[in-house]
Amino acid sequence: MIVVMAPEASEEQIQEVQSRLTHMGLDVHRSAGRERTVLGVSLDPGEADRDHIRRLPGVRDVVRTAVPFPLASRDFRPETTLVRARDAVIGGTRLALLAGPCAVESEAQTTRLAELVAAAGAGFLRGGAFKPRTSPYSFQGLGEEGLRILRRAADRCALAVVTEVMDTSHLALVERYADMLQVGSRNMHNYALLREVGKSRKPVLLKRGMAATIEEWLLAAEYVLAQGNHQVALCERGVRTFETYTRNTLDLSSVPVVQSLSHLPVIVDPSHATGRRDLVAAMARAAVAAGADGLMIEVHPQPEAALSDGMQSLYPAQFESLVRDCRAVARAVGRDL
Amino acid sequence: MIVVMAPEASEEQIQEVQSRLTHMGLDVHRSAGRERTVLGVSLDPGEADRDHIRRLPGVRDVVRTAVPFPLASRDFRPETTLVRARDAVIGGTRLALLAGPCAVESEAQTTRLAELVAAAGAGFLRGGAFKPRTSPYSFQGLGEEGLRILRRAADRCALAVVTEVMDTSHLALVERYADMLQVGSRNMHNYALLREVGKSRKPVLLKRGMAATIEEWLLAAEYVLAQGNHQVALCERGVRTFETYTRNTLDLSSVPVVQSLSHLPVIVDPSHATGRRDLVAAMARAAVAAGADGLMIEVHPQPEAALSDGMQSLYPAQFESLVRDCRAVARAVGRDL
Amino acid sequence: MIVVMAPEASEEQIQEVQSRLTHMGLDVHRSAGRERTVLGVSLDPGEADRDHIRRLPGVRDVVRTAVPFPLASRDFRPETTLVRARDAVIGGTRLALLAGPCAVESEAQTTRLAELVAAAGAGFLRGGAFKPRTSPYSFQGLGEEGLRILRRAADRCALAVVTEVMDTSHLALVERYADMLQVGSRNMHNYALLREVGKSRKPVLLKRGMAATIEEWLLAAEYVLAQGNHQVALCERGVRTFETYTRNTLDLSSVPVVQSLSHLPVIVDPSHATGRRDLVAAMARAAVAAGADGLMIEVHPQPEAALSDGMQSLYPAQFESLVRDCRAVARAVGRDL
Amino acid sequence: MIVVMAPEASEEQIQEVQSRLTHMGLDVHRSAGRERTVLGVSLDPGEADRDHIRRLPGVRDVVRTAVPFPLASRDFRPETTLVRARDAVIGGTRLALLAGPCAVESEAQTTRLAELVAAAGAGFLRGGAFKPRTSPYSFQGLGEEGLRILRRAADRCALAVVTEVMDTSHLALVERYADMLQVGSRNMHNYALLREVGKSRKPVLLKRGMAATIEEWLLAAEYVLAQGNHQVALCERGVRTFETYTRNTLDLSSVPVVQSLSHLPVIVDPSHATGRRDLVAAMARAAVAAGADGLMIEVHPQPEAALSDGMQSLYPAQFESLVRDCRAVARAVGRDL
Repeated sequence: MIVVMAPEASEEQIQEVQSRLTHMGLDVHRSAGRERTVLGVSLDPGEADRDHIRRLPGVRDVVRTAVPFPLASRDFRPETTLVRARDAVIGGTRLALLAGPCAVESEAQTTRLAELVAAAGAGFLRGGAFKPRTSPYSFQGLGEEGLRILRRAADRCALAVVTEVMDTSHLALVERYADMLQVGSRNMHNYALLREVGKSRKPVLLKRGMAATIEEWLLAAEYVLAQGNHQVALCERGVRTFETYTRNTLDLSSVPVVQSLSHLPVIVDPSHATGRRDLVAAMARAAVAAGADGLMIEVHPQPEAALSDGMQSLYPAQFESLVRDCRAVARAVGRDL
Repeated sequence: MIVVMAPEASEEQIQEVQSRLTHMGLDVHRSAGRERTVLGVSLDPGEADRDHIRRLPGVRDVVRTAVPFPLASRDFRPETTLVRARDAVIGGTRLALLAGPCAVESEAQTTRLAELVAAAGAGFLRGGAFKPRTSPYSFQGLGEEGLRILRRAADRCALAVVTEVMDTSHLALVERYADMLQVGSRNMHNYALLREVGKSRKPVLLKRGMAATIEEWLLAAEYVLAQGNHQVALCERGVRTFETYTRNTLDLSSVPVVQSLSHLPVIVDPSHATGRRDLVAAMARAAVAAGADGLMIEVHPQPEAALSDGMQSLYPAQFESLVRDCRAVARAVGRDL
Repeated sequence: MIVVMAPEASEEQIQEVQSRLTHMGLDVHRSAGRERTVLGVSLDPGEADRDHIRRLPGVRDVVRTAVPFPLASRDFRPETTLVRARDAVIGGTRLALLAGPCAVESEAQTTRLAELVAAAGAGFLRGGAFKPRTSPYSFQGLGEEGLRILRRAADRCALAVVTEVMDTSHLALVERYADMLQVGSRNMHNYALLREVGKSRKPVLLKRGMAATIEEWLLAAEYVLAQGNHQVALCERGVRTFETYTRNTLDLSSVPVVQSLSHLPVIVDPSHATGRRDLVAAMARAAVAAGADGLMIEVHPQPEAALSDGMQSLYPAQFESLVRDCRAVARAVGRDL
Repeated sequence: MIVVMAPEASEEQIQEVQSRLTHMGLDVHRSAGRERTVLGVSLDPGEADRDHIRRLPGVRDVVRTAVPFPLASRDFRPETTLVRARDAVIGGTRLALLAGPCAVESEAQTTRLAELVAAAGAGFLRGGAFKPRTSPYSFQGLGEEGLRILRRAADRCALAVVTEVMDTSHLALVERYADMLQVGSRNMHNYALLREVGKSRKPVLLKRGMAATIEEWLLAAEYVLAQGNHQVALCERGVRTFETYTRNTLDLSSVPVVQSLSHLPVIVDPSHATGRRDLVAAMARAAVAAGADGLMIEVHPQPEAALSDGMQSLYPAQFESLVRDCRAVARAVGRDL
């Protein structure tokens, strides 16, 4: 349920409404938009209580949300949320670009990529220090050393660091180095982790689960929002189907669906979605044309030698050309990159 | 297997190679490209016979195809095939536009839509006269009367008619009215029908099966090609997944995959893929950016009153705006519409 | 909608009701059960007309079906339909056993298998004469010669022949030799074919489409029933998922689901579902325990030399042991085999 | 890689081989079977080193595993592992029965169910204290109070407690009360959690991820085994498909597949798989016939009033009848319950 305050409502009136709702045993989330304040309430207290609230001074309207994720819904906030990490923004007219290696491997590799990525106009350096790997015998990431390398490389190029946090017990460590916390596809249903990043002050990048419906994905975002962290961006990365030529099936229709249901910005990761270098550029262009708020791209100085996911990492020259092409598409749809 | 003749090979040499292959019991398909003639052979006769052929006069090379669809493979024909119906072309720099109602309902409706569609620059009028419906109690189409209406409306606007043929027993009838034969998603595995349209002189539009892999789709095309009809265009229309918000999950990665594996042009149908009017435009733009060779779009004068699939049909004004937006994207990726 | 006549209703009364319904423009299907006659009406004529019918003499009740397949629904016929082909029955307490080679290859092979199959207690000899193959270059079946072989082998052992019809143009030919017409998984959505077998006097075995929902499968059966052929048995054969170890994912929950929604008997084909010989026996036992009305099993004298699907065909000794084991399970659940 | 020692190998020889492998930087897991000792080595050190090891005294053979999960593979341990929790066993001839409410709701409810479950012959009381819920606004479980209730109810009836641990930070708490640690479907890819339960001395019940392949599931088990905890049982609970009638599609073929690839026992949860009470019994019988090593069943005194998943919980009388029917099937396939 959402309580929409009148534009002229006083601070006192707003607080009175909040206090009544709290008395009813409801969690209240206050959000000050440009023109009006709205109060998101996690549960619906029923017809009688809604009527009661509607008649309080300063209340313009009480809206039942048609969707089970009130805080993530467009009803709660009509404008797209701007998610900020350092100087970078996701959700604005200019598309966000998050790029870097799949896994951090060395200082030299990461520094080189940070320069490349910054030169191409990216605001974020991505890279895994803790890697979720299907096999316990695969390279699991450099851990804290990887975080340190990412931080230094990003600082040199004024980039924001986005990196994955895989477990509540690593959160404090990752927060120390990262500007944005990534929750990976395999952890989209890890509710303990979602609650903890919801208590963090760092923005969150929430990837879609490999077989998650769009509604479940937005409910996972709701777990984060409900803890008070409203800086959440979503990332589409493909879903699992019977097709074997691509690693996953990139579901670009999720971009306009999310944008109609929710105020959270949504970016696309064509690298993990396809799992094949030769498909990344076409899918990146398509994502931009579909209206995505940004792109997450894997690039590697020598993909064939990568310790993880080399098959899908672009060569530096391919990455530069992808950015140029996506910029042209972005302009054709009234955005920029 | 593919036999590539030298550019300077004489007609006599080519015929001699053909005749040897036929003697080996192999089906041979001759294709004259701009620079050279190639012979597609459906089965691989083994190392010894390949060597024998390779040494014949006029033969430049004998290539084993890595894929199980020799005639559909890029190896067989490096340039994208141009599929022509009347004055319209699929596969060129300019994107093809196929538009019209889901089902033909009346002369007035169809005429009005043909004019709209032609004005927007489309070369094809689409519309179902025989409709494959999940329920035997749903509207099944006007049959021959629908074909007649389509023909008249298209002729008035110089459009090519593309319409579905659902069964071998209807083929002769549909051929009489249509310029291009559509094989629908539910018939992609109907091999008897594929063989019959393969014997037709009309070009074929082959939709991807609702749960078909890309390889199976290209093998279905191979059924048509193997009968001698080389005028085949493919149409991506989404695959079935667990997602319930959209009717299907549009798999745009199939566009670059098909284009790397095959010389057949590939278009996209965002109307059936999404099943929701409000998603069609974004997915059409994405399809163009992904490199699709054309778009198939449903439009209806009064979608809310349509006898079939009204939920996904665009209002005329939405269609015009979609075409404008897609044209901008097409130009950004070096094509036109 | 279903009109349930009173047990004491006279023939005259029944005909009067039929004639009123026909006057309303509705298709009526009469079904005489053991205790009462019911009239299935394909469409619902609305509240007023239902009330009118309800008040006619001899009418006990008018029931709206909750499902979109009135003729296939349990409401229409509370007892499971017995589908008969020659002396064999599907739907009784005793489970039906349909066995034989994937494709008919030779007279000798088929005769040997027919004897084996009959000795094991099967009532049906299965075998493909027209084979739906993903590749146009795979063995497509012996055609009419295969039908002739099947017929002779079955006759010698007093078995019923069940074999696939792939196209309306082959139907008359297949009807001449077969006792039961199989509509394969790839043709479950081939509505032209469903309508034609619905006009046949031969019973039909309808396989579930490879990505069909249970509702779509029952609607496909409704296409057959609506043409007047009420002798339809269903066959679960697995659906397509992301799992790659098995060819399909056998959905045994479809057995109790179908049995609660419909009066049509349902059998299970573990051979095509798994695609692996070593899994067939376990899945056959599971199917029996789930309540399946029969099993369809592929067996081959020398599976490793089979022209089609050898990987999933059982050796004769494995088949005999499967039947013994399934018989024990059948008895444990109150059936027999 | 697996090093198989000769039956007559001395303890000294075994330790010498272990020490050589450790020197090579490999993790070694020793397993003493009834007849021989085998050493599982997580990574393959290459041909030269394998030869070296093969020639050491007491070594009978060095086997490369065809599968990427050496410790979980049947090659590593030919007999099925017996997983023990208190007096209950999973993996023996007698099937294990794990039953109880979806979520623990009260002491009275749980006590009553424990008595019911024990009377039916179950060895395990299941019940959620921490519940993974799609929505943050759904009932999340009673937490530690729920664990305390479970413990007391189980102790009164001499049952083992199996309950879910959702996060590494809760592990110590759950270990204090539970006899077996359940890792739920949504956490199957939570590698941090898998590693931590791998360090626990409590046995682990690992559910299959909702869209996990069988190989990924066994690799998740490998994460646990590789930390030294060899007491792992697997639980099939359905996978996600396009079918909407059932909540998931129960993949019973995973039972014989797991049993051929791995020595870990595998049980089946038909309650979560189907999500519908009326399908649970049929799927339980099918699971037993497929060879499952046990069943996990939800039962509730008043399902319609359950705080979580009431739709799929059995009434007490249904549960008792299910057990009787499954016992008959178990005996028909040479097991007991």
